[in-house]
Amino acid sequence: MRLTVPKALLAEHLQITAKAAPPKSTMPVLEGILFQSDGQTMTLTATNLELGIRTSFPVPDQEKGEVVLPAKAVEIIRKLPGDTVSLTVNEENFLTEIKSGQSEFQLYGLSTEEYPAFADLSADSGQYACEIKAGEFRRALRQTLFAASQDEGKPAFTGIMFTLKDNTLTLSSSDTFRLATTSCRVQNQGADGVFLVPAKNLQEVIRILTNDEDSVQLAVADNQLLITCKNIKLSSRLLDENFPNIDRVIPREFSGRATVDVADFLHAVERASLLSEGVNHVVRLSIGEEGLVIRASSKFGKTQEHVPVELSGEGLEISLNSRFILDMLKVHEGDQCILELTNANKPCILRDSLYQEYLYLVLPIKI
Amino acid sequence: MRLTVPKALLAEHLQITAKAAPPKSTMPVLEGILFQSDGQTMTLTATNLELGIRTSFPVPDQEKGEVVLPAKAVEIIRKLPGDTVSLTVNEENFLTEIKSGQSEFQLYGLSTEEYPAFADLSADSGQYACEIKAGEFRRALRQTLFAASQDEGKPAFTGIMFTLKDNTLTLSSSDTFRLATTSCRVQNQGADGVFLVPAKNLQEVIRILTNDEDSVQLAVADNQLLITCKNIKLSSRLLDENFPNIDRVIPREFSGRATVDVADFLHAVERASLLSEGVNHVVRLSIGEEGLVIRASSKFGKTQEHVPVELSGEGLEISLNSRFILDMLKVHEGDQCILELTNANKPCILRDSLYQEYLYLVLPIKI
Repeated sequence: MRLTVPKALLAEHLQITAKAAPPKSTMPVLEGILFQSDGQTMTLTATNLELGIRTSFPVPDQEKGEVVLPAKAVEIIRKLPGDTVSLTVNEENFLTEIKSGQSEFQLYGLSTEEYPAFADLSADSGQYACEIKAGEFRRALRQTLFAASQDEGKPAFTGIMFTLKDNTLTLSSSDTFRLATTSCRVQNQGADGVFLVPAKNLQEVIRILTNDEDSVQLAVADNQLLITCKNIKLSSRLLDENFPNIDRVIPREFSGRATVDVADFLHAVERASLLSEGVNHVVRLSIGEEGLVIRASSKFGKTQEHVPVELSGEGLEISLNSRFILDMLKVHEGDQCILELTNANKPCILRDSLYQEYLYLVLPIKI
Repeated sequence: MRLTVPKALLAEHLQITAKAAPPKSTMPVLEGILFQSDGQTMTLTATNLELGIRTSFPVPDQEKGEVVLPAKAVEIIRKLPGDTVSLTVNEENFLTEIKSGQSEFQLYGLSTEEYPAFADLSADSGQYACEIKAGEFRRALRQTLFAASQDEGKPAFTGIMFTLKDNTLTLSSSDTFRLATTSCRVQNQGADGVFLVPAKNLQEVIRILTNDEDSVQLAVADNQLLITCKNIKLSSRLLDENFPNIDRVIPREFSGRATVDVADFLHAVERASLLSEGVNHVVRLSIGEEGLVIRASSKFGKTQEHVPVELSGEGLEISLNSRFILDMLKVHEGDQCILELTNANKPCILRDSLYQEYLYLVLPIKI
């Protein structure tokens, strides 16, 4: 294989792909990036077997061939001095010459024989399939990803639950102390169904989907989710775990409802959290006719913050984890945050004024 | 003590001072910041006993008083909502109320009794004293700090050697594998002399001196260096170690002299260093009539980079640590870097075309 490609284009596509290559693997070929040219298109692939990312771009009228290059190639190519890069692969021993400007590298490539197949599927071969706008999908991921657990000991909670029903896709996550659920409109191209996707793989989706107006295709088959957006494909293994029924824990009746300005609330909780130490980062919220008072204390001192609030129904006093509040307020987009209150021992719900479909529930801390 | 001060001003001065407060200390009072008001000036002090930083600013017609507040106060004050901050210290128990906008903090302050005295000295009480432009001093520190050792097992090499002679201050550093030496013009106000200052304390000086045109006063007494720039004072303990005579190791005769473009050289070494693994990060430089060729190899492959060079005298082949070259090229300001060559077993000297007084020497690696 011998081909010449624009450096910036190759570097950009390598950057997208390389995130899926594991730094260390018992299968050395996985530590590299798969380069494939069919003479018209260059395809780059990386995978850690849980997550695979593939991108492709045109390389008109070039030679065919393929090689696995060490992940070092990503940084090398990014730093090359010229505008173009020439790649020459020796098909016998996979020694690959990379030239650009006054720079010459020879990398020890590997045979592509042992490289695992990419879980590619077309929309119709899938068990479930739908289409969604990139901006909608990213928004829903942002609203739920932070609430998933990072504790591998609770595998079901390390995933985001996808529920596809008619033309609505609902995403839900929980770490057992809080839960987030939101939905977005999709074009359902198959059956209704549910599947659980590892949150850490979905973090990469947020990074990759940069243009809100792009169409994203989701397809599920053989325990894999395939996400396709233009020339980028991401495949994620599904979690074979039972995600609990979250509807049971969401209160349907409230004794009060408080509306606060998001910026005021965020900054007040941020300051109070400076004195909310311990594993639970406790802040105490007192909501009443006079407004919202946020209190915290630690060995360094104590604080109280006042935030104006519009209250309907009854107020209450409740202790919450300040980190949990901040996580949600950081992805909040509307001007107002709505708190739905029951009592000090029942979950508190936070809502974003801009998204009726978004619900974030936090369990109180009992002191 | 009760006073009201502009928030931004207080936050800015706390930011400067706080770096000297240790996160943990056997003397709890050191973990805090000393606040002192004489009714007209607010003085803030932090120290870890090795390094002390003091700043002051006017607080016209306010109350007198003093307290040590936990370092948490720095972040709290930075995040307060109002334009002004009011501080009220209870002189009995040092409980300190901090109010700004809708925010109220009560911090458990400490008595100032156990807080160590700040090593303040006037120019004439000192053993040595000189004045220098902030920009000159920062430049000299930047050129030498990176070459000091971080190995506490070689204490003499963790310092920067200051040599004051007539109106020239020379700064030198070495980690035994390389050395950097530069000088700057000063106004000597006392005797000639030498003293050794911990490099890590001088890192803070670079951070603090922001305006190149400011005058900086250096004074040495009682095993302390006091650096004064406007309303900021920094005091550093001196190292009581013998710094070796570096003149002996600097070659005075060269067989060749090569001049290269700094950007070309920097980028070529950066790329080659991607394949220069192992503790020594070896790159091999071949300097000849045809130019400079930089070679490196690792388990991933090998590389060669070509850089045009203007050579007078003889070329050579020499192996150097790529990190050491990059460290110097990153602080290089002139357009051209000059390499002074002897032979493959003798040190190689790098010079910045903009600063004749700056010399950087690197020992070769024997392979």
